[in-house]
Amino acid sequence: MGVIRIPFDEVRLHLKNVLLAYGCPEDKADKTAHEMTRNSLEGVYTHGINRFVRLVRNIEDGILKPEQNPVIVSGSGAIMRVDGQLGLGVPNAWFCMGEAIRLAGQYGIGLVALKNTNHWMRAATYGYQACDAGMAAVCFTNTIPNMPTWGAVDSRIGNNPLVLAFPRKGGHLITDMAMSQFSYGALELARLRGRQMEIDAGFDMDGNLTKDPDSVIRSQRILPTGYWKGAALSFMLDIFAGALSEGNTVSGVGKLEGDEHGVSQVFLAIDYKKMVPEETAASIVEQAVLDLLASKKAEGTRRIIYTGELAEEYREENSRNGIPVDERVWEEIMALKA
Amino acid sequence: MGVIRIPFDEVRLHLKNVLLAYGCPEDKADKTAHEMTRNSLEGVYTHGINRFVRLVRNIEDGILKPEQNPVIVSGSGAIMRVDGQLGLGVPNAWFCMGEAIRLAGQYGIGLVALKNTNHWMRAATYGYQACDAGMAAVCFTNTIPNMPTWGAVDSRIGNNPLVLAFPRKGGHLITDMAMSQFSYGALELARLRGRQMEIDAGFDMDGNLTKDPDSVIRSQRILPTGYWKGAALSFMLDIFAGALSEGNTVSGVGKLEGDEHGVSQVFLAIDYKKMVPEETAASIVEQAVLDLLASKKAEGTRRIIYTGELAEEYREENSRNGIPVDERVWEEIMALKA
Repeated sequence: MGVIRIPFDEVRLHLKNVLLAYGCPEDKADKTAHEMTRNSLEGVYTHGINRFVRLVRNIEDGILKPEQNPVIVSGSGAIMRVDGQLGLGVPNAWFCMGEAIRLAGQYGIGLVALKNTNHWMRAATYGYQACDAGMAAVCFTNTIPNMPTWGAVDSRIGNNPLVLAFPRKGGHLITDMAMSQFSYGALELARLRGRQMEIDAGFDMDGNLTKDPDSVIRSQRILPTGYWKGAALSFMLDIFAGALSEGNTVSGVGKLEGDEHGVSQVFLAIDYKKMVPEETAASIVEQAVLDLLASKKAEGTRRIIYTGELAEEYREENSRNGIPVDERVWEEIMALKA
Repeated sequence: MGVIRIPFDEVRLHLKNVLLAYGCPEDKADKTAHEMTRNSLEGVYTHGINRFVRLVRNIEDGILKPEQNPVIVSGSGAIMRVDGQLGLGVPNAWFCMGEAIRLAGQYGIGLVALKNTNHWMRAATYGYQACDAGMAAVCFTNTIPNMPTWGAVDSRIGNNPLVLAFPRKGGHLITDMAMSQFSYGALELARLRGRQMEIDAGFDMDGNLTKDPDSVIRSQRILPTGYWKGAALSFMLDIFAGALSEGNTVSGVGKLEGDEHGVSQVFLAIDYKKMVPEETAASIVEQAVLDLLASKKAEGTRRIIYTGELAEEYREENSRNGIPVDERVWEEIMALKA
């Protein structure tokens, strides 16, 4: 099976039509289709077109209720708690980061905690949302249990992606990192290609660290990023997400039947211009980027990048040539009602 | 040389008297001596008694100005910017987390960014401060350039410790993690003992990942925690610290002559009780801890712990038996004027 190239608008429109056919209201179908297409446009294929059929299955299974709206449950000053009512993950998260931005416009900082929501797809989306509004942001989500904590064999913590984002004229600075060193998707891909990972990817059945994707897939002992450090950070992000939202922690998400749903998320926006002149902050950021990019390359390094730089390049290339889509995936999508 | 055990109060009083003799005002001498002694009490020896002589040298060198007070520079609503005026790092940071807690009491969340400060010693200190006030917290600092970014050979990013903290009756949940997998101190100790690290610690002179501490010390290519992920997170923390405080980024800290000083820090407190009933949050947190501790141990694992648990145990043991202090270190401290 080959890879075909499809223009952004063609993908976006088709995904939207499918979502409308599956009962999504117009605004939510539009937002979800736009962001999922954008994810593929910017090289985040795992959370773009490739994941679309799974989202539709979640609607069919009744664990994603596309007609539901996020509801503000409680709040005070610059903090707010929202119930996602198991609605679409992308518009739910977008709503919450929007509220965090609004609160930050008023108080300098805003925090929104969201419970009972569905997969937000690409974590960075909400960092970009804040950056485009001129604000710095932090956001994170919890997940199903998919990783053992340090010293354990059974999966009781999540890979809980974390985003830090800061606006920059020449390209926003965005870190979007899951708490596992590699996703099972990346391990699966390497296994299919008969490749070893370049660094430790997890433990084998005998409890030894290994670069072999097949051994890790069999043991289900994927490695926290930074070993014990990522395990601890993952746990704390889950504590924040669950307790601030009064929602499920990873453990609770794991107890729900069916595909992952009912996750908890936290959105934080900072209107730093209220305490630092915008041009001063921009100059500090630019100097830091230039200093980083002036690093001396190690042998074998093609170039040094800043975090978020590659998304810009994928966008440029895929805007010009169309988004690369696996033919088989596109056929599956075309087979959905629309 | 052996290790001696000294009671908490004896250490604390002596450190305080030294600080007074070196021109520290009473309240700042008391706070700094208390927290540095507590760090050793709770097993964080690197940022306790062992670091005290270096702090006194910084005063002698004029890069730490013990008589200076933190000054509020600007702010709006729930955010604030503070100039540390190169004063003592511990009371400066304590003041800022205190202000973040005060703002959170008013707005639900508070953020304080601090510039021109000195080493805050143990990052977790300010997480405990917030937890003891019933609040969740995040804080981080930047440092001198001490780590190459991903793919680089020269050190242009910092190990920028990050703390996440959530209050809990049975022992606060605290993660305190530097962005390097190991500190140079840990590598030095392993080298002296002729030991290899258990996992990759950095690169050797030929650019290969290695567990050999000596090779990493020689190449000065220490490993970011989580490889490329820790490099990116370190950079973003630096961007936040420098831009929000209008202070030095890692690059700027590296340009200052002498020992590390003039760093930037961020303090965030969340009064989550304003949106979630305290008992509900406590119950969510407790369930998550119990679920984690119920993990099935891997072969060779003595037990599974939650993040922050070991500090409690060190405190108990060292309170009972006295704080273990290297005789040579204590002699050096006793030789300081007091």
